[in-house]
Amino acid sequence: MASERSEMVRDHWRSMTQAAMGNPNQTPAEISERVERYWPGLTAEPGGVDYLEIEVGGLPALWAVPKQAAADRVIFSVHGGGGVSGSIYTHRKLFAHLAKAVGARALLVEYHEEPYPVPLDDTTAAYRWLLDQGVEAGHIAVVGDSIGAGLAVSTMVRARELGLPLPAALMLISPWVDMTVSNETFESNRETEAFFYREVVSFLASAYLAGASPTEALASPLYADLSGLPPTYIQVGGHETLLGESREFEQKARKAGVDVRLDEFSGQLHTFQMAAGYSPESDDAIRRLAQWARPRIGLA
Amino acid sequence: MASERSEMVRDHWRSMTQAAMGNPNQTPAEISERVERYWPGLTAEPGGVDYLEIEVGGLPALWAVPKQAAADRVIFSVHGGGGVSGSIYTHRKLFAHLAKAVGARALLVEYHEEPYPVPLDDTTAAYRWLLDQGVEAGHIAVVGDSIGAGLAVSTMVRARELGLPLPAALMLISPWVDMTVSNETFESNRETEAFFYREVVSFLASAYLAGASPTEALASPLYADLSGLPPTYIQVGGHETLLGESREFEQKARKAGVDVRLDEFSGQLHTFQMAAGYSPESDDAIRRLAQWARPRIGLA
Repeated sequence: MASERSEMVRDHWRSMTQAAMGNPNQTPAEISERVERYWPGLTAEPGGVDYLEIEVGGLPALWAVPKQAAADRVIFSVHGGGGVSGSIYTHRKLFAHLAKAVGARALLVEYHEEPYPVPLDDTTAAYRWLLDQGVEAGHIAVVGDSIGAGLAVSTMVRARELGLPLPAALMLISPWVDMTVSNETFESNRETEAFFYREVVSFLASAYLAGASPTEALASPLYADLSGLPPTYIQVGGHETLLGESREFEQKARKAGVDVRLDEFSGQLHTFQMAAGYSPESDDAIRRLAQWARPRIGLA
Repeated sequence: MASERSEMVRDHWRSMTQAAMGNPNQTPAEISERVERYWPGLTAEPGGVDYLEIEVGGLPALWAVPKQAAADRVIFSVHGGGGVSGSIYTHRKLFAHLAKAVGARALLVEYHEEPYPVPLDDTTAAYRWLLDQGVEAGHIAVVGDSIGAGLAVSTMVRARELGLPLPAALMLISPWVDMTVSNETFESNRETEAFFYREVVSFLASAYLAGASPTEALASPLYADLSGLPPTYIQVGGHETLLGESREFEQKARKAGVDVRLDEFSGQLHTFQMAAGYSPESDDAIRRLAQWARPRIGLA
């Protein structure tokens, strides 16, 4: 049974749906502003975290540095937002909660909101930049949510192809990894979903692909060769339309020999972890991620 | 004529009114959470600012450090929230916008949300702490909004009484300086106001006073001896119920020999500066504050 507190996530996505229905001609700038203004309100301030803005490859990036975090352990963090919105600011508190729970710094990276492969080029350059700072790959965990999780996977696949060392752990929050938007849970969870209806996700996929094939491996990492990926932990909400592709991804990763874990949170919606500090399910999810990641990056 | 963009401030206060009317039994914790979740959404991220959390007198405080800010110039910043809500987090972006425009660091201080004189004790201790760090008083500007502006004035009066050096400038944003809640603009602006109706402000005043006299000088600094205060710049919205006490305060300060300026922003509401980065009136207000403050703290 979903907690009453976790309903704030549903309220948020419903209000996004209402805004879209109330103004079908919303411009991308209007959508982006709505996301910037209201998505961060889901997350309580973690407190005790410093935020340092830097530039990585000409793009803004943000260090979230919890007090007493291990300085040499890093959570490389890729935000979601459908490829058209979201930022290091919308996800500041979410990834700071995770960093605080892990006891590591988080590096939130930005990417151009342009069609594939530009965002992947940006996140790959950012990952390479982090390695160039002298951080050991074995001390890095990677996390992403929604399209940020898809980008995180694609970044790992490309890093493998480039011969870069891979991180010690990969955490995927409500991953969007399939641009074909064909999983059966788009229908079976339509009634419990609050925003990510098939038509919405199809619209976002079209914008992201801009003509590329929806099964192109690095655009839709469900279709990529996943062998050699680091230990991977997926969290998904039981009420979201993207549930099915998390299950498919888990199976594909397992077949490819990846050490993979999938936790489904019953009654929860897309990226419900954003309600960290308010909703018990979100706090539980963050705690599980941290407990899973800590030993993998060498923290007791 | 108020810009369309500035209407987001009205929408915000209206939604606060609707929430209060929809649930007259809102607990203080519920009100505080609503403020934390939605007030910051009025302000765009300034970008290019680092945020460092520290402790000042056992309370959290926040350095907002714009890139290329003068390290030895400080804006001592006291947030509003009626004495029952608001925090270094709700006002992070607002005061960072101001700090960026001035080219100085901002120190956002916290105080216990308890009746007078506890908040004043806290802000006075924080001001003393800042002086103890070796920052020259002539390099400090003080800013506050709403009850934070009232606290800023009272802190200055008490600092003067204590023989502490006073800062070079005092900026008051929609100051709440009169706990008698008696100014005629509570009636004459009732139709244009969106939240701070007399009964709301009276409720907050009762909570803050907890039995103290509403004309006690340091609780209601409109009734304080204002002589010796630093140059003071007041900004107030033409549509807010607190307009009248800004005018009264300006006259009292002038009579006390203070170098004082009052700008009324026609069509604007309480602390409309929170919409910095979105609303042109807010950006204009921040720009005016910065231009006024810079030479006073020795910046070209």
